[in-house]
Amino acid sequence: MIKLGENTFWLSGRTGITARAAVAGPIEGKGPLGEMFDKVYKDEKCGQTSWEMAEGQMLSDCLDTILVKGGKTPQEVDLLLSGDLLNQCMSTAIATRDRNIPTLGLYGACSTMAESMCIASLIMEGAATRNIICMTSSHYCSAEKQFRFPLELGGQKPKSSQSTVTGAGGNMLTWDGGNVCITAVTPGCVRDPGVTDSNNMGGAMAPAAATTIATHLKDTSRPPEYYDMILTGDLGELGKEMCGQLTMELGYDISKQLQDAGTMVYAPEESINTAGTSGCGCSAVVLNTVILDKLEKGELNKVLFVGTGALHSPALLNEKQPIPVIAHAVSIERR
Amino acid sequence: MIKLGENTFWLSGRTGITARAAVAGPIEGKGPLGEMFDKVYKDEKCGQTSWEMAEGQMLSDCLDTILVKGGKTPQEVDLLLSGDLLNQCMSTAIATRDRNIPTLGLYGACSTMAESMCIASLIMEGAATRNIICMTSSHYCSAEKQFRFPLELGGQKPKSSQSTVTGAGGNMLTWDGGNVCITAVTPGCVRDPGVTDSNNMGGAMAPAAATTIATHLKDTSRPPEYYDMILTGDLGELGKEMCGQLTMELGYDISKQLQDAGTMVYAPEESINTAGTSGCGCSAVVLNTVILDKLEKGELNKVLFVGTGALHSPALLNEKQPIPVIAHAVSIERR
Repeated sequence: MIKLGENTFWLSGRTGITARAAVAGPIEGKGPLGEMFDKVYKDEKCGQTSWEMAEGQMLSDCLDTILVKGGKTPQEVDLLLSGDLLNQCMSTAIATRDRNIPTLGLYGACSTMAESMCIASLIMEGAATRNIICMTSSHYCSAEKQFRFPLELGGQKPKSSQSTVTGAGGNMLTWDGGNVCITAVTPGCVRDPGVTDSNNMGGAMAPAAATTIATHLKDTSRPPEYYDMILTGDLGELGKEMCGQLTMELGYDISKQLQDAGTMVYAPEESINTAGTSGCGCSAVVLNTVILDKLEKGELNKVLFVGTGALHSPALLNEKQPIPVIAHAVSIERR
Repeated sequence: MIKLGENTFWLSGRTGITARAAVAGPIEGKGPLGEMFDKVYKDEKCGQTSWEMAEGQMLSDCLDTILVKGGKTPQEVDLLLSGDLLNQCMSTAIATRDRNIPTLGLYGACSTMAESMCIASLIMEGAATRNIICMTSSHYCSAEKQFRFPLELGGQKPKSSQSTVTGAGGNMLTWDGGNVCITAVTPGCVRDPGVTDSNNMGGAMAPAAATTIATHLKDTSRPPEYYDMILTGDLGELGKEMCGQLTMELGYDISKQLQDAGTMVYAPEESINTAGTSGCGCSAVVLNTVILDKLEKGELNKVLFVGTGALHSPALLNEKQPIPVIAHAVSIERR
């Protein structure tokens, strides 16, 4: 491992992705990724008594699926990195309790999938770990209740708002495994662009994404064309446009490469009233279905995955404080 | 780095602690550690408008102090690992925003100080990082408001309850630096011992601490006597006693080595109505004052620091779910 430039760590490329899973709610199941999910739940409760328990169940099912698809017992997994949006990462606690896998809890809001892969691949360079599982979840109903208003209020939303993905996704990183590997990571800094609108997460996160992308390209001396795709986590339509413009202002034209996971989950008829989707589960289910599938098959060769997180806290907004944001980049390449 | 036994990572010992800081509230300032704090605030608001903002200010001051004492600019710090007890780790967001240091957010409840040192020292073995800052905070008033009842209600508490430390602590880990280094880490698993009483955190966490301590001793083939002290994070009087008994049942008599940070913060007259202190700040301020001071001076040579965390969520308790718990161990030795 070598540190490059400001914030980028150049990895050996020996850490590969050997299993991946994604489960999702019924609306997500009807979207373009529907066929690729390992499980689609019939309703938002996922057989549980509450939305929070449902989210925990999804993450738990996701973990089971990763273990089965990776062909590993819990004893063969060295570390489990997980976090989610619920207060005290409740979903992670539910999914990991009594699993007998050493667990490191994360809080990176919607950047968690990328954050977990950054940490896991950095740790793996030290070479004592064979398998690390990275995962995260979110749930539309539990997130609205916690961050905005309970759904029962029937509140209306502006078109800038994004819907939290009901789903969980994750993968297993294995030293010297898989045909898709991680070649570099650029962990991001917490930024405070001054946005206070909790219905405009994409606008809040776009500056963080742009900064991390520009830092990564500068640190690695890679032009945008190096990548087949630069995939941001959950900026939505508005945030994606802003991110492209802001990255251009920082000297990089990424218009040909930029895609956003927040525009890939819902069917067109579902997304008509929103700017797209968001939530920890958003980038997690997109990465761990269509993106890694294309990388494994050679339909994509090099993807810069940029998890974006709004560290949005209702208590911070009550204090009239803006929403801090962060973005972490993971360079994923076909061997 | 070599993996030993079930869950322990044997490190090169090249990661040392080169700076440390701890700041605290007025009650903590009157306790036995008072003289050792870098800053003691006159009141719980720390010059801010709310308890949450006060906690963020403490953590921010702690970060400033680590940078000054370590003689490093933000540009010289490769990574910052931080988490706290507030929903969405609000205190971390406040302290880290616009610092220009790549930041990885953690959620490990009161185990955060140990969790951050586990991750940092594992990452450092890959050798590209020079300096990583680890830190955390908690605040009595913000924690009571969020997890139990607002202080204004004047609720009474059972004697098993512990008071959250108002304080922040952290340190800088440096590759090939310092005379005190990290020789091994044992990240813990999430356990669910079935405790549902949010006023008995020590009882909930004791089984996690005992399991992690026994795993560490077994994995490393070290007898308890190898350590001058086994320091748990915040079990309090009751939890400490339980931890000793449970570790004995697992085959290790640690009665001579076991100490708990939750019994070291308050002056005797303050602790008379509680079982001790807890909170992320508890183990953070104890480790980063008296414990590391004694290690640096040679008054202690080998300490097993076991951060203990109750992943307690009010929403989980509303679901009649027990409190999941975790404990991470960090072996800290004088070179």
